[in-house]
Amino acid sequence: MNVLALDSSQKIRVGLKKGEDLFEISYTGEKKHAEILPVILEKLLDEMGLKVKDLDVVGVGIGPGGLTGLRVGIATVVGLVSPYDIPVAPLNSFEMAAKSCPIDGVVLVARRARKGYHYCAVYLKGEELNPLREPGVVSDEELKELTNEFSPKIVLKDDILISPVVLVEESEKLFKEKKTIHYYEIEPLYLQKSIAELNWEKKKRG
Amino acid sequence: MNVLALDSSQKIRVGLKKGEDLFEISYTGEKKHAEILPVILEKLLDEMGLKVKDLDVVGVGIGPGGLTGLRVGIATVVGLVSPYDIPVAPLNSFEMAAKSCPIDGVVLVARRARKGYHYCAVYLKGEELNPLREPGVVSDEELKELTNEFSPKIVLKDDILISPVVLVEESEKLFKEKKTIHYYEIEPLYLQKSIAELNWEKKKRG
Repeated sequence: MNVLALDSSQKIRVGLKKGEDLFEISYTGEKKHAEILPVILEKLLDEMGLKVKDLDVVGVGIGPGGLTGLRVGIATVVGLVSPYDIPVAPLNSFEMAAKSCPIDGVVLVARRARKGYHYCAVYLKGEELNPLREPGVVSDEELKELTNEFSPKIVLKDDILISPVVLVEESEKLFKEKKTIHYYEIEPLYLQKSIAELNWEKKKRG
Repeated sequence: MNVLALDSSQKIRVGLKKGEDLFEISYTGEKKHAEILPVILEKLLDEMGLKVKDLDVVGVGIGPGGLTGLRVGIATVVGLVSPYDIPVAPLNSFEMAAKSCPIDGVVLVARRARKGYHYCAVYLKGEELNPLREPGVVSDEELKELTNEFSPKIVLKDDILISPVVLVEESEKLFKEKKTIHYYEIEPLYLQKSIAELNWEKKKRG
């Protein structure tokens, strides 16, 4: 089975599985997601001797995360899969972070949103991952309260590790469980309005 | 600063940092370390527009881990750095695994060695990493005892995640602290004799 999966909610993380072979690539730096992601994908497919049409499923992180990064990731996947209508596995980036953590217990995942706010979710991680609190935007004050309420064993904050292996495994699982979607159904998990949208509304209000 | 770091004690993990840009690549699969590692390094350097002589330091995982994989990683690094005598940062693979874990506490790292035995180390992970028990070979029974004795918060076993970012950071740190070595001083952390050595001794004994 050939599986490509990527998440661009923060760093760029890409996993490509062809049979038993699995490559993982991550990039952090000053290059823009839109500049670097297509290059990584092309080189990786080329290295594995795969063409896009050989992929059985493509997974994509839908957030929460940086708006621009997410949009680039989703647009790139749409561009890749639409000619062949390859099934898409929508991946919740916070769930992927929790699954990437090597130990079990209550996991709180948080990531800075606009000033004074965080995206936050809480999971119980065991053999399965169960959400105790679905991703949402909370004030810094509420984040403290949630941390007290759930006393998580694991806190993943800001620089959140998402393992490309987990992205690939989850995509394969969704494919086997027939939980994939079409490329035109991909919906990013936008938990907050973009600065542009806020400015626009402000302007409209006058 | 340009830093290359790799660990081949289990999976192949490579990190390459050029200024603010950092690429991480991991490979798992059926291809042999000796076959895939040079290809990854060449492509990665090429992608970043770097030549070997541009590297300030090269980090290499010295184990504990699979003997063949370690040897390939070390030989590859020696081959790369020897013409320019680029400083080498020797990286303890178990310390790198403990540092890659996203939470603090007592960490027990274990990896299957020959039948009935494990390599094992215990660390206290906080801002710094302090060894509570240096890596060694223990029987499966002793491993249970150690687990009871230290009641680790985190157990990293068998499929141990080593983050290429951690490899790069540690290499940079050792370089800055002037704790690098020359390529001819690299010593793998062989904690047990290879099957070939055991067979040879057996044969000698007759």
